[in-house]
Amino acid sequence: MDLLRTLCQLAAPAGNEAPMTEFLLNYIAQQQSSWRVQPQVLAGEGFQDCIILVFGQPRTAVFAHIDSIGFTVRYGQQLVRIGGPQAETGYRLVGQDAQGAIDCTLTVDAKTGELGYEFTRLIERGTELTFYCDFRETDTTVQSCYLDNRLGVWNALRLAETLENGIIAFSCWEEHGGGSVAYLAKYIYEQYGVRQALISDITWVTEGVHPGEGVVISLRDSLIPRRAYVDRIRRIAQESGIPYQLEVEGSGGSDAKELQHGAQPWDWCFIGAPEDHVHSPDELVDKQDIASMLALYQVLMEKL
Amino acid sequence: MDLLRTLCQLAAPAGNEAPMTEFLLNYIAQQQSSWRVQPQVLAGEGFQDCIILVFGQPRTAVFAHIDSIGFTVRYGQQLVRIGGPQAETGYRLVGQDAQGAIDCTLTVDAKTGELGYEFTRLIERGTELTFYCDFRETDTTVQSCYLDNRLGVWNALRLAETLENGIIAFSCWEEHGGGSVAYLAKYIYEQYGVRQALISDITWVTEGVHPGEGVVISLRDSLIPRRAYVDRIRRIAQESGIPYQLEVEGSGGSDAKELQHGAQPWDWCFIGAPEDHVHSPDELVDKQDIASMLALYQVLMEKL
Amino acid sequence: MDLLRTLCQLAAPAGNEAPMTEFLLNYIAQQQSSWRVQPQVLAGEGFQDCIILVFGQPRTAVFAHIDSIGFTVRYGQQLVRIGGPQAETGYRLVGQDAQGAIDCTLTVDAKTGELGYEFTRLIERGTELTFYCDFRETDTTVQSCYLDNRLGVWNALRLAETLENGIIAFSCWEEHGGGSVAYLAKYIYEQYGVRQALISDITWVTEGVHPGEGVVISLRDSLIPRRAYVDRIRRIAQESGIPYQLEVEGSGGSDAKELQHGAQPWDWCFIGAPEDHVHSPDELVDKQDIASMLALYQVLMEKL
Repeated sequence: MDLLRTLCQLAAPAGNEAPMTEFLLNYIAQQQSSWRVQPQVLAGEGFQDCIILVFGQPRTAVFAHIDSIGFTVRYGQQLVRIGGPQAETGYRLVGQDAQGAIDCTLTVDAKTGELGYEFTRLIERGTELTFYCDFRETDTTVQSCYLDNRLGVWNALRLAETLENGIIAFSCWEEHGGGSVAYLAKYIYEQYGVRQALISDITWVTEGVHPGEGVVISLRDSLIPRRAYVDRIRRIAQESGIPYQLEVEGSGGSDAKELQHGAQPWDWCFIGAPEDHVHSPDELVDKQDIASMLALYQVLMEKL
Repeated sequence: MDLLRTLCQLAAPAGNEAPMTEFLLNYIAQQQSSWRVQPQVLAGEGFQDCIILVFGQPRTAVFAHIDSIGFTVRYGQQLVRIGGPQAETGYRLVGQDAQGAIDCTLTVDAKTGELGYEFTRLIERGTELTFYCDFRETDTTVQSCYLDNRLGVWNALRLAETLENGIIAFSCWEEHGGGSVAYLAKYIYEQYGVRQALISDITWVTEGVHPGEGVVISLRDSLIPRRAYVDRIRRIAQESGIPYQLEVEGSGGSDAKELQHGAQPWDWCFIGAPEDHVHSPDELVDKQDIASMLALYQVLMEKL
Repeated sequence: MDLLRTLCQLAAPAGNEAPMTEFLLNYIAQQQSSWRVQPQVLAGEGFQDCIILVFGQPRTAVFAHIDSIGFTVRYGQQLVRIGGPQAETGYRLVGQDAQGAIDCTLTVDAKTGELGYEFTRLIERGTELTFYCDFRETDTTVQSCYLDNRLGVWNALRLAETLENGIIAFSCWEEHGGGSVAYLAKYIYEQYGVRQALISDITWVTEGVHPGEGVVISLRDSLIPRRAYVDRIRRIAQESGIPYQLEVEGSGGSDAKELQHGAQPWDWCFIGAPEDHVHSPDELVDKQDIASMLALYQVLMEKL
């Protein structure tokens, strides 16, 4: 879990993913010689802070978003949200501005709900703050801020080790309105003819989805994927013997929104471990669900 | 109205339109020899569950969505909406899961508004339920669930009988966030240079739009079409002598949303019969408005 | 400011921008011989009511929306909003229908908030009404309806006088859900490889943004632009010595929404003068902020 810990500690809120991109490009350069297949690495000009890895003859693409939720410093001691973080007075927030490192405390006005910070000095307008990372591991669980979606990124990187045919796309802005999957999807479809997608992301523990009972295959959230594609995935999962759970929600979204609304006929399915304490500094995931997530991705990328 | 009755009885909620696609492909294969012009039929790979019919030298495309509203079974006896169906305790819902046919009753919690079902057994997670179809016809009206938009589909199929130049596109997911018109619009624009659209769909009876007074030309809903295009349509309608009404709304939407927001310069106009009891099992449309809808489409596809 | 006055007086609500398009095409035809570089003018078929000007070898595109907010006549004496205008009983509204010129008064129902008009006759369904333009100029300010975004258009036209390399795009529908920038962005990216954008539009005076303190560089609104691009702009602005202010908001949007969500990797930044009395007949802007807006655009188009 050292890789996961490193990913969770890296600050990369939506709009400023560049530090994560740099880390990933270095990691891929160092590790890929040990991978079963050497991917083509697409990044830089024309991809903003995204990365596409192309392995062999791809039929399916995995999307994992590399951005996180956070806060932007507004005027005076005000904060505004990046994405939808939980906010409780006392949360520890970190960042950096021209005057140096920042380690401050979140405040939530009890009456108005307005967000602010307490610190020894004013922080520069526009500075991004992220949760301080307190990474906790037990025999059965990992707990940290930003498991959503550093765990989805971790899953993609582990998948890359044995992947023979497929695409892995690291996307940006997912937590804050999206903005990169539209062009990634267009590029992948036009260059490789691929229009099957798996969304490597983290979902919620709910009354119907329980920690430790396996990776979640989502039948729907605020959007509804094409039934025929999801049914194929369910059959492969069933035959694999890997533990999984089925999710049905009326809300929530993912990178799939941009696939669904884009100008290519993508089929997509959200598949990821469930977490508790969503969008807080204490996101909690069961290790068995991480294991089944990776195992199911390995099978699906072979059989889809 | 036998064709309309058959269309209304077919279950095809958003995301699972395949049964309707299959019916339409069979219908087209059987009927097209009697049509004035044989269309090119585009379907299958790359079109998901959509169908495009290309007649002659097209200048204008008709979009008719084939999906419907409905409900998805969540956990236990919970339901979540597909699109925006009316919900009243006692509505009869039908469906199918691995254990067999389902004929159950909708429940709406009086306090929380939460949706559920009553049935002799639990229904499998993710199963889609649709309104039971009670198709009722009088001398002057038809009444059924899903006239929105089986009547728009019916209009397109009847239009096909005499259409010489034009495109008919059967789209998916309209009731639940869209997701197919973006790629249909791109394909049609790039392959045929067509960027004039008519939205063959059903609208609302309101204080300004009355049953029996003719097909509705919508001047706006939540979106505003380009005035110059709508003015051309109004002039053609005026000259035709066909009864029509003008609608002005601040809310509501259609497949036109994806045309408006897509990356091609589509002009569009919503033209359809008005119905009462919208999105319920009892949608009601006046037959005169159906007749004027088809007549106006025939004229517009010739003159636009 | 005669040009600005003329622009403010022209009625061109979202969906009916054609009168503004016609004015701009005439203006460009008359003026461009005095410009440093003669642009290629793209308009008409395939661009709806938009205009693209291409100067030299472009690296950056300026987007200025030409539409305005307003009202549509619904049924009887009802109105519905075009975009998000302020509404107060007594506002003077003007327009035109087949029966002639209209000069009427806005009414807002004190209980329901419903909008209507008072006039000597009924106005035809679907007629657009806009604020009556009372253009007021002092030594230090301009005040009028529609400074948002006639001032952004004015800025683009003044920029055109000296622009050597760059694109100016006049867009439609910005105030009402968008609908043209998606195809403009696609065209510009595919034809010219340009993916840097500046949004020439007007923002808000707030507790952190004050009139007279310079043009606003927005670090975020409801969307978050890519940090690396905005940082480059801030450095150029800093070095230029031109007065500017930094804005951080959690809401609001612009043509940038379509750039962010489109299928090309656009970088964008909103840069514009702040105004008070937003979306009312009394929008107020400080002339110093107009001057610094134009100056900053001139520098950025050279250095970006």
